[in-house]
Amino acid sequence: MKIAVLKERRSGERRVAASPETVKKFTDLGCTVTVEKGAGDGAALSDAVFEEAGAKIAATPEATVKDADVVLKVQRPMTAADGEDEVALFSKGQILLCQMNALIDGALVRACADGGVQAFAMELVPRITRAQSMDILSSQANIAGYKAVLDGIEQYGRAVPMMSTAAGRVTPANVFVMGVGVAGLQAIATAKRLGAVVYATDVRPDTKEQVESLGGKFVAVENDEFLQAQTSGGYAKEMSDDYKRQQAELVAKTLPKIDIVVTTALIPGRPAPVLVTEDHVKSMKPGSVIVDLAAEAGGNCPLTELGKVVVKHGVTLVGHGNWPSRVPETTSLLFAKNLLNFLTPLIDKETGKLAINYEDDIIKGSLVTRDGKIVEERAKANAEKS
Amino acid sequence: MKIAVLKERRSGERRVAASPETVKKFTDLGCTVTVEKGAGDGAALSDAVFEEAGAKIAATPEATVKDADVVLKVQRPMTAADGEDEVALFSKGQILLCQMNALIDGALVRACADGGVQAFAMELVPRITRAQSMDILSSQANIAGYKAVLDGIEQYGRAVPMMSTAAGRVTPANVFVMGVGVAGLQAIATAKRLGAVVYATDVRPDTKEQVESLGGKFVAVENDEFLQAQTSGGYAKEMSDDYKRQQAELVAKTLPKIDIVVTTALIPGRPAPVLVTEDHVKSMKPGSVIVDLAAEAGGNCPLTELGKVVVKHGVTLVGHGNWPSRVPETTSLLFAKNLLNFLTPLIDKETGKLAINYEDDIIKGSLVTRDGKIVEERAKANAEKS
Repeated sequence: MKIAVLKERRSGERRVAASPETVKKFTDLGCTVTVEKGAGDGAALSDAVFEEAGAKIAATPEATVKDADVVLKVQRPMTAADGEDEVALFSKGQILLCQMNALIDGALVRACADGGVQAFAMELVPRITRAQSMDILSSQANIAGYKAVLDGIEQYGRAVPMMSTAAGRVTPANVFVMGVGVAGLQAIATAKRLGAVVYATDVRPDTKEQVESLGGKFVAVENDEFLQAQTSGGYAKEMSDDYKRQQAELVAKTLPKIDIVVTTALIPGRPAPVLVTEDHVKSMKPGSVIVDLAAEAGGNCPLTELGKVVVKHGVTLVGHGNWPSRVPETTSLLFAKNLLNFLTPLIDKETGKLAINYEDDIIKGSLVTRDGKIVEERAKANAEKS
Repeated sequence: MKIAVLKERRSGERRVAASPETVKKFTDLGCTVTVEKGAGDGAALSDAVFEEAGAKIAATPEATVKDADVVLKVQRPMTAADGEDEVALFSKGQILLCQMNALIDGALVRACADGGVQAFAMELVPRITRAQSMDILSSQANIAGYKAVLDGIEQYGRAVPMMSTAAGRVTPANVFVMGVGVAGLQAIATAKRLGAVVYATDVRPDTKEQVESLGGKFVAVENDEFLQAQTSGGYAKEMSDDYKRQQAELVAKTLPKIDIVVTTALIPGRPAPVLVTEDHVKSMKPGSVIVDLAAEAGGNCPLTELGKVVVKHGVTLVGHGNWPSRVPETTSLLFAKNLLNFLTPLIDKETGKLAINYEDDIIKGSLVTRDGKIVEERAKANAEKS
């Protein structure tokens, strides 16, 4: 069985879909691994370290994917409409594993179907216990949350921890994490490590406990409705309009005392919700910073500009985008491991060949195109309407 | 008594020599404070906050210093040779407080003497207990050491803390702090906060205890000579050539396992010593980072380029320079406080006028020019030879 690892071609992408560790593991399973020349350069993984781990290096993308059973990538391939047709590299029946954005990028999904590619969208792997180690969304969001805090501190003109010096005391920074998923939790942990006073909020009352276990202060109107929602467990029911209004007031009252805000709210397949309005920004202290992890999805603040650091109303808005690629070594190692964990159960230990059980929940959840057809219903609906 | 606060004019300097707190304190002492328009802009201190604290705002440097008894600055004024003659602003008898670099910048010292300025070099304030709260070198180096670690992490492609994730464990970064003065100690503390494994070294064996108290591992050949030097207390005698050779070997053996190096060794009035050679750099891992806090003094690594971030032999060298200005709000607050603490004892509480005791050790140590003469011996010797 032959595995190919392509160099990423999208602008600014520094990650790679394999690591020396995963190359070695695949080789031990009897696979041959071909890595495109320079694929790991952005992640400080040279061709030499891949060769040492047992990979062959191929000079071109064509030579890399030739005869491959499985192609590994980080980001979805580009189509002709993107200016460079990576989908055209693939041959009929080849398996592609990557982050597809399959519910959004209809053109790509159609192109993969038309090319006869078996495309697996790693972001659609079901969030079940057995698949946790394959979860690219978690592994990448974790590091994004870490980096978001550092990117905020980079723009912040004060020291974060409290310091007692001969010239006087430096007060600690107040960090406010809005949205407490995987990225938010790591942002809280990182800001705490650095000595910040950390506040956090989320629409799910059951995140209060997680925030507090990391040393953060949960910002919520804790009335009867909240307490009921908190104890009901699992996904909370929608809160009342009155509750939402009170909570919005509390957030508005919190922001003026904050030095660094990290927003992390994403809704799959939809624009990011607005958490910080222009009026909120105006209420904040000069020199404070907002890091908008949702920049690529339109932003949690309407003033964020994707790919830029801008100052508006005296507040610095950080909208880099693609945060995982900003810590490319660690995110590559984890992404590669996710792919290894996904692919390993599909390899027959005796024959060393692929043996895919198309009835398995993980396969059913993530397989998007097969035999010329779009087989994932939501991806199909999206591809048909777009 | 009238105090003037000039806007900094040297390129890249974001600090300011006053804060709302110090303006208020000076005003409470009966002084009037005039701040040049925009002086605090780089440190998120607007004219409005200075006015609120009791300062007047003046539109030009000339209007700011007019009739002032004391002028406060962060960096030494420029002379005509620097392209803009700030010394020409001052009138005879005016007092100037700033970092003068008085033992290096002979041209400035001569210009101050010729202009009849009473120039105090804050970097020459004696390091005695009574003057600790006036010590700009400590207050600024402290924040520089903090920022150096963050600047290193910014360039580093991996996450620093150990993280246990569903996709596997992320190992912590190894940070090596070379030179354990004020900056080095804060660098150790900051790297530890962020979860790094921290190593540190210094030519003074008695720093071992400080390093260990912060959770760092001291890197030294701990033979009899070392132990003797360590227990002798105070400044250690020069170590033997044999010891130095063994220690150099140990450092050379340490560097290949390090991810982020922070070098902090400065020798007052002389070029910085080389701690990391080109061969050392070649021995380091691809993707590792060196932050050279001595960049402005020639660098602790000969490959450092001042004001730049460069990659050589796969290692990123960070040579920003003027680190205190990279955290301008905190360093301004501390610098301003140092000046307040220096100036307050010179103000007669009853008359509100200056009453300087020229026999005081702090005054004798830091006064560089007076009545047209250079009165500090080392500054005089330097000015005469340069």
